Amino acid sequence: MDEKSIKIIRDAQLRLSASGLDERNNALSLIYDELESAKDYIFSENSKDLEEAEGIISASVIKRLKFDEAKLKSVRDGIQDIIRLPDPVGKTLEKRELDKDFILTRKSFPIGVIGMIFEARPDALVQIVSLAVKSGNAVILKGGKEAKNSNRALFSTIRKALDKSDLGSGFIELIESHEDVASILRMDKYIDLIIPRGSNEFVRYVMDNTRIPVLGHADGKCTVYVDESADLDLAVRVAVDSKVQYAAACNAVECILVNRKIAGRFLPMLKSAFDEHGVTIHGSDEVLSIIACKPASSVDFDTEFLSLDCAVKLVGSTEEAIEHINAHGSHHTDAIITSSAADKALFFSLVDSADVFANCSTRFADGFRFGLGAEVGISTSKIHARGPVGLSGLMSYKWLLEGNGEIVADYASGVRTFHHKDLQ
Amino acid sequence: MDEKSIKIIRDAQLRLSASGLDERNNALSLIYDELESAKDYIFSENSKDLEEAEGIISASVIKRLKFDEAKLKSVRDGIQDIIRLPDPVGKTLEKRELDKDFILTRKSFPIGVIGMIFEARPDALVQIVSLAVKSGNAVILKGGKEAKNSNRALFSTIRKALDKSDLGSGFIELIESHEDVASILRMDKYIDLIIPRGSNEFVRYVMDNTRIPVLGHADGKCTVYVDESADLDLAVRVAVDSKVQYAAACNAVECILVNRKIAGRFLPMLKSAFDEHGVTIHGSDEVLSIIACKPASSVDFDTEFLSLDCAVKLVGSTEEAIEHINAHGSHHTDAIITSSAADKALFFSLVDSADVFANCSTRFADGFRFGLGAEVGISTSKIHARGPVGLSGLMSYKWLLEGNGEIVADYASGVRTFHHKDLQ
Repeated sequence: MDEKSIKIIRDAQLRLSASGLDERNNALSLIYDELESAKDYIFSENSKDLEEAEGIISASVIKRLKFDEAKLKSVRDGIQDIIRLPDPVGKTLEKRELDKDFILTRKSFPIGVIGMIFEARPDALVQIVSLAVKSGNAVILKGGKEAKNSNRALFSTIRKALDKSDLGSGFIELIESHEDVASILRMDKYIDLIIPRGSNEFVRYVMDNTRIPVLGHADGKCTVYVDESADLDLAVRVAVDSKVQYAAACNAVECILVNRKIAGRFLPMLKSAFDEHGVTIHGSDEVLSIIACKPASSVDFDTEFLSLDCAVKLVGSTEEAIEHINAHGSHHTDAIITSSAADKALFFSLVDSADVFANCSTRFADGFRFGLGAEVGISTSKIHARGPVGLSGLMSYKWLLEGNGEIVADYASGVRTFHHKDLQ
Repeated sequence: MDEKSIKIIRDAQLRLSASGLDERNNALSLIYDELESAKDYIFSENSKDLEEAEGIISASVIKRLKFDEAKLKSVRDGIQDIIRLPDPVGKTLEKRELDKDFILTRKSFPIGVIGMIFEARPDALVQIVSLAVKSGNAVILKGGKEAKNSNRALFSTIRKALDKSDLGSGFIELIESHEDVASILRMDKYIDLIIPRGSNEFVRYVMDNTRIPVLGHADGKCTVYVDESADLDLAVRVAVDSKVQYAAACNAVECILVNRKIAGRFLPMLKSAFDEHGVTIHGSDEVLSIIACKPASSVDFDTEFLSLDCAVKLVGSTEEAIEHINAHGSHHTDAIITSSAADKALFFSLVDSADVFANCSTRFADGFRFGLGAEVGISTSKIHARGPVGLSGLMSYKWLLEGNGEIVADYASGVRTFHHKDLQ
């Protein structure tokens, strides 16, 4: 991508950011309709990707790659959900009178141009574009290469719909090559944010090769701590769901810490439930002395398995569990199972993670489940957005100041003074 | 700085983040008192810096370097202001019932460990530490080398005060060498944010050498546009204040755009006022045909002069002014002088800058003037914080979810459904 193309996208975004909610919602409705009209074309292009992928990539990746009636319905339902969300643009976030009739307003505005790099999931393309339209952001899309034909079909369908709208389609672009990715990483003058979804190494590569702010997460090394006051049946149920409901997800549990006082009762219960679901326990020496399992290696407590494996260890207290989590976790999602209000409060206060839960599955860490409408990703950074990132994570703001000829010299000399009266 | 030292700082920050407002305010009061007790020592250490600097650095830098009774009063008053601010930690930002008795809360928490690199201004050290204490953040300080003795004296005074408090002083550290700066830039596992104040090149160096998020601004190329409907006397007053009230500041104006329709009347007024204040106009050819001034070179419209120089150019419309600002400005602070509500609205909507003003000086772009209490810097990024960054820019948040054994499998199968009821 060259400088001329990116300037066109940036100009289109500026016009988009000044559009009204009706225009943006109308464009979303046009996309909703066009996807239905073009479905045979999209399905047939998707078949090409599936044929090429067969035998080369795993069944779980093929499942994500597939774009059928069910996926179409799901993304179209998602568009309707996004249409129903309130307008995120132009919201007054602060309003303050600095002096008589001298009004400062902080208003939400779109971030601008976002580079979005995502996995081989064609439905993600539709979701991301829909969120971009609603939030007034331009988006440069780079999808997984296995979904090349599907992405092209979906992109051209969406572009066709947007060209029928008042907004036009200049604010979206699809790129495919590694060279294009490398070129956008250098465009810190024109691109405001990069959201890389994908492997840890890929996120690091992006961070090392750009001055553009990056919103992403590294690992998802999530922990469940079972406190001495825990309801043990509840703890087993939550542990099983956190591990097996979708083991390859970043919010799946990878480590279970058990308070030593209840280990003798809890570990056999956990083992029996994990055995039923085919989960391999990697236990510390103490765990091995209570239940039969695989001995944990030295790296198991720093590993994101993403499989039916789970490291298990004993600790003496909630404090020790917190220390372990802060040292070995990835600041993503961690849960305590407890009946003690004091232990819950301590855990909430001191676990340094985006999502800190009590008595429920780590798998709830998700934009849809949190009620954010949809998510563009999960952030383990503490800057800008933390945890599941929904529409609000795609917004920035401007400070607007309206005066009547005020000058700083008058305030510096004391002729006038600020009164800083909050109006909102 | 080695890994062991940074881990100690991080642990101290976790304890700090769990402290109450009274403890943090009490620590601030102790700093307030200790600065007064230690003032002779601080002044004498400051004298050493001033002696070493004499003849080597400019008068304006020496003015900033000086730490006397007036500066002491100002930083102590600043501490009192910060004590009076409401607690930024633990504020409920969102609260939502996902399902019956299944409560999600988004609460403000400190960012964590912040690396703060600042210019040779000893008062900045006190301000930054005070904001860190109030917001529950650890801070690693690196001040300008010209202020070495003053910074050591202020740091040891503050450390002494904090050691008398319940918080201790483990969450602040002073570093001095370039090697130490290079080492903290590599600590993306332990440091959450770098705020570099200083030259453009220095900010770029930091961005190129770290994976840690960076909050900073590049240039301050601010523009004032004088619309055809402007009150011309008001326009002159605002232009003069924006340029001369403190020409070396990042929020000083560097370019004035004048609507062609009023140029014949306005330019002579501007020239007469600028002549009075010793401002050199760098005019475009059209400007030269109306008033006598220096011809603008090709780079003058992309230059941050930071001196009594100002580029001046004519434009045909508010749209053209906006285009010029978005292409040549630095997204910092830009103002329109106009009596037209429509032109103001257009300017507010399309100028892509942190601070967009109407009918007042660009010099108001400042945390104190905005009523934020104090500022740690000004951001021209659109991520996390934009424009003047006060206490709220030092905060992140956590998602806290409290359940009673909820598992995702039940919601995936449809046994249970989310109702997502906002409680706040």
